Amino acid sequence: MRELPLCDAAKAFVAAARVCRIATVSADGEPHVIPVCPVFDNEATVYVDIGPSSATARAVAHDDRVAVIFDVYDDDWSKLRKVILKCRAERVTGEEQEAAWKRIRATYPQHRDIGWKPRLTLALRAYAWLADGIERKR
Amino acid sequence: MRELPLCDAAKAFVAAARVCRIATVSADGEPHVIPVCPVFDNEATVYVDIGPSSATARAVAHDDRVAVIFDVYDDDWSKLRKVILKCRAERVTGEEQEAAWKRIRATYPQHRDIGWKPRLTLALRAYAWLADGIERKR
Repeated sequence: MRELPLCDAAKAFVAAARVCRIATVSADGEPHVIPVCPVFDNEATVYVDIGPSSATARAVAHDDRVAVIFDVYDDDWSKLRKVILKCRAERVTGEEQEAAWKRIRATYPQHRDIGWKPRLTLALRAYAWLADGIERKR
Repeated sequence: MRELPLCDAAKAFVAAARVCRIATVSADGEPHVIPVCPVFDNEATVYVDIGPSSATARAVAHDDRVAVIFDVYDDDWSKLRKVILKCRAERVTGEEQEAAWKRIRATYPQHRDIGWKPRLTLALRAYAWLADGIERKR
């Protein structure tokens, strides 16, 4: 894993993602992983909004470490790309939550049809990262 | 989470996947997640081949629990689909490894160009699962 900051190619790759998968560890030590729709602050924080009673919510209440993977699959394996962020999750409220939701509304306008409203909004603050394949694609 | 067996729709969804993401827990309790190219035995075991000195290999040597997510993203959120398998990882060798590699070679013929050879082949044996969106798509 690499130290921050992320390189520009990694920032651009993360910023463009419509989906990522976040892995957590439950209280009994079991891994869990779900897909989520992220927004990125273009520096080192990914915001996601999850169900407050979900397995992921219970996991981060117990252990705030979250591994986040952004990747693109292609049957041409020379085009495989990924960025993994190791993060700590922090519940955000107030101004930071509203700023995150401003990004979410702009990025996913379809949330209006779904009726998706702020639930448990997490700031996933990266403390380490790695990337593969993103430089050669740019 | 649901008990086994998987329903037919979940089996078909997993069997069709070209990529999935597998989450593990490292010795220090940190979550990790990587993308892998799976093959499925059409019942309850997913085979993947990973680097023997990778973070994932070290993690499963310490704790064999692996969460596997198969999902398809679409900006039309009515089309979101996912299957999550909770598994135990077991290194396979001999006949079971060769059978897994027969599937891998058939599913990913491009491995020949990459020069991908058996490394650490894991059988991810599901013990619980959940699915969302797969029934309404079939």
